[in-house]
Amino acid sequence: MRIVITGGAGFIGKKLARALLARGTLMDRQGTVQPLRQITLFDVVAADGLAHDPRLELRTGDIADPAELRRLISEGVEGVFHLAAIVSANAEEDFDLGYRVNLDGTRHVLEACRALKEPVRLVFASSVAVYGGDMPDVLDDRTILTPQTSYGAQKAIGELLVHDYSRKGFVDGRALRLPTIVVRPGKPNLAASSFASSILREPLAGTDAICPVDRDVAIYILSPRRVIQALIHAFELGPEAFGPSRMLTLPGISATAGEMVDALRDVAGEQVAARVKWQLDPRIQKIVSGWLPDFDARRARAMGFAADRDLAEIIRAHIEDELGGKIA
Amino acid sequence: MRIVITGGAGFIGKKLARALLARGTLMDRQGTVQPLRQITLFDVVAADGLAHDPRLELRTGDIADPAELRRLISEGVEGVFHLAAIVSANAEEDFDLGYRVNLDGTRHVLEACRALKEPVRLVFASSVAVYGGDMPDVLDDRTILTPQTSYGAQKAIGELLVHDYSRKGFVDGRALRLPTIVVRPGKPNLAASSFASSILREPLAGTDAICPVDRDVAIYILSPRRVIQALIHAFELGPEAFGPSRMLTLPGISATAGEMVDALRDVAGEQVAARVKWQLDPRIQKIVSGWLPDFDARRARAMGFAADRDLAEIIRAHIEDELGGKIA
Repeated sequence: MRIVITGGAGFIGKKLARALLARGTLMDRQGTVQPLRQITLFDVVAADGLAHDPRLELRTGDIADPAELRRLISEGVEGVFHLAAIVSANAEEDFDLGYRVNLDGTRHVLEACRALKEPVRLVFASSVAVYGGDMPDVLDDRTILTPQTSYGAQKAIGELLVHDYSRKGFVDGRALRLPTIVVRPGKPNLAASSFASSILREPLAGTDAICPVDRDVAIYILSPRRVIQALIHAFELGPEAFGPSRMLTLPGISATAGEMVDALRDVAGEQVAARVKWQLDPRIQKIVSGWLPDFDARRARAMGFAADRDLAEIIRAHIEDELGGKIA
Repeated sequence: MRIVITGGAGFIGKKLARALLARGTLMDRQGTVQPLRQITLFDVVAADGLAHDPRLELRTGDIADPAELRRLISEGVEGVFHLAAIVSANAEEDFDLGYRVNLDGTRHVLEACRALKEPVRLVFASSVAVYGGDMPDVLDDRTILTPQTSYGAQKAIGELLVHDYSRKGFVDGRALRLPTIVVRPGKPNLAASSFASSILREPLAGTDAICPVDRDVAIYILSPRRVIQALIHAFELGPEAFGPSRMLTLPGISATAGEMVDALRDVAGEQVAARVKWQLDPRIQKIVSGWLPDFDARRARAMGFAADRDLAEIIRAHIEDELGGKIA
């Protein structure tokens, strides 16, 4: 089987590629387990830090170029993980770039799939940023999407496209709404969600971190491990599992900033937890308070998707996967 | 004030133009009542059947041509009613045409508005076709959109665009989800909803009509009069009335086919009602059964939008507006 991962140089793209290479197989649309012959990682820059593997192809290009996409998703490709996106803060800053990549790019991916003889199975990474506005305390699969960012609007539009192209039989797609990923590896960035990983990652690595929101601000999170599992599980599910909607919010756990630091203390001790400094940033507090705090992911659970058991599991997975088992 | 109506040759576009010309004024974004100096009706064909009026401009062109749209929505335009669309059955048949007009066209309208110095007030006609799939018995403003047609998907995408462009301040938009319009003037067409107008319109005009669905199939309807009132009311509301969502489902009434014929009997007598012949078409029954049967339009009512009082009001309005007060 040949598959393509767009946004392949991002941390989820690379983790997904590593997981697929380690697995070696993927179930095709006929329900047959097939060896993975080629995984193409497509992005604006070449994916770095991956061990050499003959099955791996790195490819750079512009997702907003339809001809490029046709060459990328060519006859013989049986699966696409469409992860490429301009992230939230960037899409808010550069309106045209956000629409060019997140809307036009997604359309080009779908059109390239539609041009193939055999329908391609496609997993689209959407986001809980599609939610916003006047929300109930706990959202569920019947809650309307009223995004409060351009990124959220673009993801919601992408979902509708995947849903409609799938209904028409042009692609066999499914759109997963990813919770905020915690713990993201790497460095803090300018995203409003950055602190949610920072307050765990930095103390575990031996440095201080600032928590810019109150202890009781809740966010809906999922670990990188579970996200990768969900992407693969979504790929292997038959279309009948999705019924009349190809859009699905993944199970996550709702955790407050205070609970996250408490869990850090439980797993790594007081000394590590004390590296979190509380310093309120009203701007970030306001943004984060507008995110969905909790979700009843009944439908996704019934389909076999799973959240992390608790915060301790998320923290331990990070220590294993990113720190070689050692706390600084 | 100069305004533009896209889809201006359609029956709603023409009714809206007539209503605006009769009114003579519209409230602008500053809350000042302004005389209407020019109404441009834009469509692929020139609007016919309108009395000459120096304030009326008829213009033909392709909504999928961005340059054309820039010329149409030029400096000085203060309001846009964006009604142009490829209808449901046609968008389902011709996938590319539907996306070209209903998605790209809407984007071009928004981009043309964005290019102006002063934000334009825009009313976008969406549709309850955005709903579908697994629905509760009564939907409300928090119900998710899972369209089961390309037309519904395109309208849902258009709403998200209007919502996001408005949030960014590029346009002052609002998207209204129109119920099924009953009684549509004119002739029966191939739309699955055609019967809902036919079973009232044809008998009142002296000819037989076929009802292809069971007596107990319910649809959510609104009269042309109320739709025109809603479009104008939506234009004149301030943005604060919409809060964090620019998307709104209009109040309508839920009526079964049986209730519609009963109301026809009450208003026009047994002889007229007997012109409805019941002849089940399982294909139409299936499509219509997938539409939203009822909606709790609490938010829209609180904003001053109103449904017809009852079926009798809908039928009497049709007799007055389209039949000169006379039943055949």
